[in-house]
Amino acid sequence: MTIRVGLVGYGYWGPNLARNFHQLGALTTICDRDGKRLSQAQRLYPAAKTTSDYRELLEDKDIHGVVIATPAQTHLQLAKEALEAGKHILVEKPMTMTSKEGEELVATAQKYHRILMVGHIFEYNPAVIKIKELISQGNIGRIYYIYSTRVNLGQVQRDLNALWSIAPHDLSILLYLLEAMPLEVSVRGASYLNSQVEDVVFIHLMFPEGIAAHVHASWLDPSKMRRVTIVGSQKMVVYDDVDNEAKVKVYDKGVHIRGEIYGEFQYRLHSGDISIPQIDLTEPLRNECSHFLSCIEEGKTPQTDGHNGLRVVRVLEAAQRSLNHQGKTERV
Amino acid sequence: MTIRVGLVGYGYWGPNLARNFHQLGALTTICDRDGKRLSQAQRLYPAAKTTSDYRELLEDKDIHGVVIATPAQTHLQLAKEALEAGKHILVEKPMTMTSKEGEELVATAQKYHRILMVGHIFEYNPAVIKIKELISQGNIGRIYYIYSTRVNLGQVQRDLNALWSIAPHDLSILLYLLEAMPLEVSVRGASYLNSQVEDVVFIHLMFPEGIAAHVHASWLDPSKMRRVTIVGSQKMVVYDDVDNEAKVKVYDKGVHIRGEIYGEFQYRLHSGDISIPQIDLTEPLRNECSHFLSCIEEGKTPQTDGHNGLRVVRVLEAAQRSLNHQGKTERV
Amino acid sequence: MTIRVGLVGYGYWGPNLARNFHQLGALTTICDRDGKRLSQAQRLYPAAKTTSDYRELLEDKDIHGVVIATPAQTHLQLAKEALEAGKHILVEKPMTMTSKEGEELVATAQKYHRILMVGHIFEYNPAVIKIKELISQGNIGRIYYIYSTRVNLGQVQRDLNALWSIAPHDLSILLYLLEAMPLEVSVRGASYLNSQVEDVVFIHLMFPEGIAAHVHASWLDPSKMRRVTIVGSQKMVVYDDVDNEAKVKVYDKGVHIRGEIYGEFQYRLHSGDISIPQIDLTEPLRNECSHFLSCIEEGKTPQTDGHNGLRVVRVLEAAQRSLNHQGKTERV
Amino acid sequence: MTIRVGLVGYGYWGPNLARNFHQLGALTTICDRDGKRLSQAQRLYPAAKTTSDYRELLEDKDIHGVVIATPAQTHLQLAKEALEAGKHILVEKPMTMTSKEGEELVATAQKYHRILMVGHIFEYNPAVIKIKELISQGNIGRIYYIYSTRVNLGQVQRDLNALWSIAPHDLSILLYLLEAMPLEVSVRGASYLNSQVEDVVFIHLMFPEGIAAHVHASWLDPSKMRRVTIVGSQKMVVYDDVDNEAKVKVYDKGVHIRGEIYGEFQYRLHSGDISIPQIDLTEPLRNECSHFLSCIEEGKTPQTDGHNGLRVVRVLEAAQRSLNHQGKTERV
Repeated sequence: MTIRVGLVGYGYWGPNLARNFHQLGALTTICDRDGKRLSQAQRLYPAAKTTSDYRELLEDKDIHGVVIATPAQTHLQLAKEALEAGKHILVEKPMTMTSKEGEELVATAQKYHRILMVGHIFEYNPAVIKIKELISQGNIGRIYYIYSTRVNLGQVQRDLNALWSIAPHDLSILLYLLEAMPLEVSVRGASYLNSQVEDVVFIHLMFPEGIAAHVHASWLDPSKMRRVTIVGSQKMVVYDDVDNEAKVKVYDKGVHIRGEIYGEFQYRLHSGDISIPQIDLTEPLRNECSHFLSCIEEGKTPQTDGHNGLRVVRVLEAAQRSLNHQGKTERV
Repeated sequence: MTIRVGLVGYGYWGPNLARNFHQLGALTTICDRDGKRLSQAQRLYPAAKTTSDYRELLEDKDIHGVVIATPAQTHLQLAKEALEAGKHILVEKPMTMTSKEGEELVATAQKYHRILMVGHIFEYNPAVIKIKELISQGNIGRIYYIYSTRVNLGQVQRDLNALWSIAPHDLSILLYLLEAMPLEVSVRGASYLNSQVEDVVFIHLMFPEGIAAHVHASWLDPSKMRRVTIVGSQKMVVYDDVDNEAKVKVYDKGVHIRGEIYGEFQYRLHSGDISIPQIDLTEPLRNECSHFLSCIEEGKTPQTDGHNGLRVVRVLEAAQRSLNHQGKTERV
Repeated sequence: MTIRVGLVGYGYWGPNLARNFHQLGALTTICDRDGKRLSQAQRLYPAAKTTSDYRELLEDKDIHGVVIATPAQTHLQLAKEALEAGKHILVEKPMTMTSKEGEELVATAQKYHRILMVGHIFEYNPAVIKIKELISQGNIGRIYYIYSTRVNLGQVQRDLNALWSIAPHDLSILLYLLEAMPLEVSVRGASYLNSQVEDVVFIHLMFPEGIAAHVHASWLDPSKMRRVTIVGSQKMVVYDDVDNEAKVKVYDKGVHIRGEIYGEFQYRLHSGDISIPQIDLTEPLRNECSHFLSCIEEGKTPQTDGHNGLRVVRVLEAAQRSLNHQGKTERV
Repeated sequence: MTIRVGLVGYGYWGPNLARNFHQLGALTTICDRDGKRLSQAQRLYPAAKTTSDYRELLEDKDIHGVVIATPAQTHLQLAKEALEAGKHILVEKPMTMTSKEGEELVATAQKYHRILMVGHIFEYNPAVIKIKELISQGNIGRIYYIYSTRVNLGQVQRDLNALWSIAPHDLSILLYLLEAMPLEVSVRGASYLNSQVEDVVFIHLMFPEGIAAHVHASWLDPSKMRRVTIVGSQKMVVYDDVDNEAKVKVYDKGVHIRGEIYGEFQYRLHSGDISIPQIDLTEPLRNECSHFLSCIEEGKTPQTDGHNGLRVVRVLEAAQRSLNHQGKTERV
C-alpha cells in the first residue's frame, strides 16, 4: 500500500516537508492560503494538487495523513478537523499553545483512533539517537548536567518568542535523553526588537536525581551555534550540529574523588581519548517523514506521539509562567 | 629607579607571576609555606631570595611591592600587613571574600597612601581593550546583551566554588565593558564532586538601560571554552580566547525593524562582512605586571584599583546570596 | 520565452543538474541508459519525460538546450550530435579527453551557431568571483603564487584519474584568476587502488611573470579539504570552501624588503587585520544553470565557453604527458 | 651526577634551549657574539655564566655537553671543536650543510667517543611517537602516501632557503615514520623576496615499496599550518600540530577493492569512527633536552644521533640538486 499525505502550510518549514514527502513518493496535495506560495509549490511539484481550501484536502479520500506546518496558534483547530475527517496527522512543534489544547488533541486522536505525531525532529536525528545509546549502555556514567546552546541570526518571529519557537528542540532532546520530566523550571529572557516578544531566553531546569539542565536560545546572535553538552561522571559528550566531521565527540574525561585527607577532598583528573562515532548522514527530516508513513502503514505509535508533544508543551507552559514572573521557579 | 617586588604564594598562579616579574627584572623574593614549592622556585630563580616567613619579605627594605597569590581567604590579612609595612600591593582576584573586607582593604591602602591593585587580568588583555575601544567609538551601536562561557576541565577548588574562582574574570570584563554596576543578579549552580562547592554556575545579570548579561562558569566540562559574545544593535562581537587566529571577530550583522504594517513588525536581516582586528599578542599578565611596576614608579592609580576590585566583590556577594536562595533575584 | 533543456546522464552529477534546471522551470526531458536511474528520475520529476534513447531527446523541438553529464569519454560524440541537431549545449568538465577533440567541438559549435558552454562551476561561485574582484582592484598586489588542495575520500573513478576528474576545478580557477595560460606543467601522481589510475596527483605550474601554482588533488584522503591560497605582495587570501562562516579570508599580511645593509636584506613582517567579505550564498550550480539559460535566451557567449573549456583541456593534456614521464616538465 | 651544559647561540632558537636546560637544572654557560643578546640572557639566567668567547666554554671542565644553536654554516666548525675538547654535543638542524661535512662530524664524534645528537625535535614529539606506534602495531595497514604542509608567515632566512630551514622537520618525521631512505627526490621552489633564496618549496619523494611523500614548506603564507597526513590501506591519520584538542586524528576510513566485474574494479568505501588518542602534553623540546642529558649520563646513543642527522642532510643535498635543476628527479 502506498501511503499518501497532504501538506497544509507552505511557508518557512513546509517546503522541507514537501521535498521529503515528495522524495518518499507520498506527496499528494499542498494547501496554503497564500497564492504566491501555492504557485511556487506547483512549479516544484507539478504532479501534486494545490489548493487554498483546507476542506478540499480533508475530503480527499486518497489522502491518509495530513502534515500541519502552519503557525502554532492554528495547530489545534487544523489538527482536530483532520482527525475528525479520519486523517492521521503529523503536526509541527510546538504541538499546541497550551497543555489544555494539547490534552484535547490527544483525546481527539484517541477517540478517532488516528495517529497523532509531533515533529520533534531531533528524536529522529542519528546523532541524538547515538547519544541516547551511549547513555543507555552506561558509557556516560551518572549524568551530572546537560546544557544546550541554540542561537543564530534570523528566523525572527512576530508572535512566538524564542522560548516557543526555538527551545522546543532542546526540551525534546532533554526529555528524550533523560527519559524524565523536569520538576522545576526557571526562565529569564529579554526583548530587544519588539517589546512583546523575547528574542533570547535562558532556561534552567531541575530534573529528578539532581540532574540540572540549561538552555540558551536566541535568534539574535552573530554566529550559528547548535551545541549540546552532556557532562557525566564517566564520560562527557559534545553534540555539535554544525560540525560536519565531528557531530558527536565522546570525551573519556572526568574528575574523580580519591578520598578525603584531613577533611579535604582529593581529586584526580582524568583526560583520555576522544572518540567520534560514525553517524549516519541521512537527513533527520527524511527519517521523521519516513517514520510517519510507516506508523500509518503498520499502525504503530510514533516515537513522538501526542503524549510526547504534550510533555514538551507542559514544560513550555511552566517556562512561560516563569518568564512572566522574572525567572521565578515554577513547578512543571 | 628599579622597582622590586616580593611574591607570596607559589602555588597554581604564583609561578606565572614569578616568571613575568623575573622577566621584567623586578623579582626579589618568593615566599611560600610549602618547602617543596620553595625549592622549585629557588631552582628556577637562583638569584631570588626564598623564604617561608612572610615577615622577612615585609621587612625587606629593598622591596617596594608585594604580590599576593595565596588563597582568597588569606588576602585581607596578608594585604593589610603589607600595606602597614609600607608596601604597595597587587592582590589576586577575588580581592577579598566579602565587601566588608574589601572596604577595609581600600581604607587601609588610602590610610597608608599605598597602591592597591587587583589582578583582574582581562582588563590588561589586548583583545578586551580592543572591544572596549569598538564600543566607545560607537561601532557596536546600543548593546543589547552580553554572554560569556568560561568552562574547562580542571582547577577544581576545594573551598571556593565556580562563582568565586572562575566568574570574577567575567564580572570584571562586564563591568569594564559596560562601565556600570548590575542592578540585580540571579545565580543557579550545582555541586557534583563535593556537595558544599558548586562546580558549575549560571549567572544572570541586569544592568541599567535594559542590558542583560549571562555567565556560564564551570570546571567540569569536556572542552575548554572562553568566549564572550556582545550583541549590539549595529554590530556583534565574539571574543574567543582560545582561537589563536581570530580572537576578536566583529560581525557587521543585525536585525532592523523596517516599520509596522497592519500592526505587524517588518524585520530586515542584515549580514555583512566579518572583520578580525589585529590584536597585540603580548601576554596579558606581562601587561598587568608591567602596569603594577609603572604605577609604583609613577605614583599612578591602577586600572584595576581597590574600588574596581571591591565592585567585583560586591557583585559576587549578591550573587552568592542568590545562589544560596535557589536563584532568587538579588539587588547588588 | 521559456527556455527548455534536456539532460543526458543521470548518474553522480546529473541529479544536481536536474534539480537546478527543474527549480528554474526549464527541465523537460531526462535521458539515461540505465533504467533504474531513469525511474528514480521519473519519481522525482513526474512532469519530465524520461527516455533511454538520446535520439528522442535530440528530435524534440521543444528542447533548446542539451545538458551533457555523461562520462567524459562520451562528451565529444554526444555534444556533436546535439549541436548538429541544432541544440545549444552545456557539457560537464572535462569538456573532452584531448585538445583535438576540443577543437573539433569548438568548430562544430561555431559551424552551427550554437552555444557551447562547459560546466566549470567555480567560475560561477560567488567566492571565486569575489577573489577575482579583489585581484582586479589591485588589493592583493603582485601575485606571488597560488596553491590549491582538493582532497576527500570517495568518488573513486575507474577510468579517469584524479588529474582529469578532480583537477579541472583547480585549473579552471587558476586560469580564471590569473587570466593567463601556464607556460609549463609538471605532474607526479601515484596509483594505489588500481595501478592504471592515479588516485592522487601533485601538479606544478609556471605562469608568466614568475607566478607559480601548485595543485594537490586526491580522492584518497581522510578529510575533505577544498582550499585555495593566494599569496600576494600586499595581501593574502584563503578560500576555504568547506568553512561556512568564512569562505574567503583576506589577510592584510606580507613581508617587505626594507633595504639592504652590508649586503644583507632587511625584512619587515606586517600582520594586520583579517577581513571576511560577505559572500552571496546562492548555490553556484544554480548560477551556472541560470547563466546557460540566459545565454540561450539572449544569444550571449557564456563565461565558460568552448575556448575556456579547451584551455583547460590543453593544460590537462600537457599535464598527462608529464605524469606519463614521471614529472618531466612539459610546455603547455 | 648532575650533567651540565653550555649553550652557544642565543638568537632565535637558543632562548628556548636555554629555558629548557635551565628548567632541567643543567644550564651553566651561554655564549653568543652579540653583546645585547648576552645581556638579555644574563638577566633571565643570572646564575649562568655568559661569554662571547667560545674557547672559554670549551675549556670549562664543569661542562659535559655543548648545545649548538648557531647558523647552520657554522655547525661543523663549532661542533668539531667541541668534540675535540671532549664535550658531548647537541647540534641544531640541519646538522651540516653537506653530507661530506656530516660524515666528517660523525667520524669526529666516533674518534673522540663523544655523543653527537641532532636537534630533530619531532622525534621527541609525543604526537609523532604515537603515530609511529600506530604504524608499528599495524593499525594503519600498508602506507600509501604521506604529505606534509609546514607553512607560516615569518622566520624569513637570509641565506638558508625554505628547503634547508623548514623542511628538515618534515624529512626527519618521514624518515622516522617510514624507517627508510627515499630513493628519489624532486623539488621545485620559488623565490619572491630575494631571488637567491627560495621562500617556498614543494618536495616530492619516492620511498621503497611505492610509498610516496610530498612536502610543502614556506615562510610566505597567510596562515600557520603544520599538518601531516598519512594515508594507509586500513586507516588514515592526520597530525595537526596547531590543533590543541585533536593533535592526532585516526580515521577508520578506507577504500577497498571488492573484486572485478567484467574487467571493472568494484570499490567499497568505508568510513567509520574517528579516534583522537590522548597525547602527552610535555613540551617536545623538554623531552629532547632531557634525552640529551640522559644519553650523556648513561652513555646511550641518542635517538637522533649523527647518522640520523646525516641521513637528513643527504636527502637535503639531493633535494637541493633537484631544486637547482628545476625539479629534475635526483637519486638520494
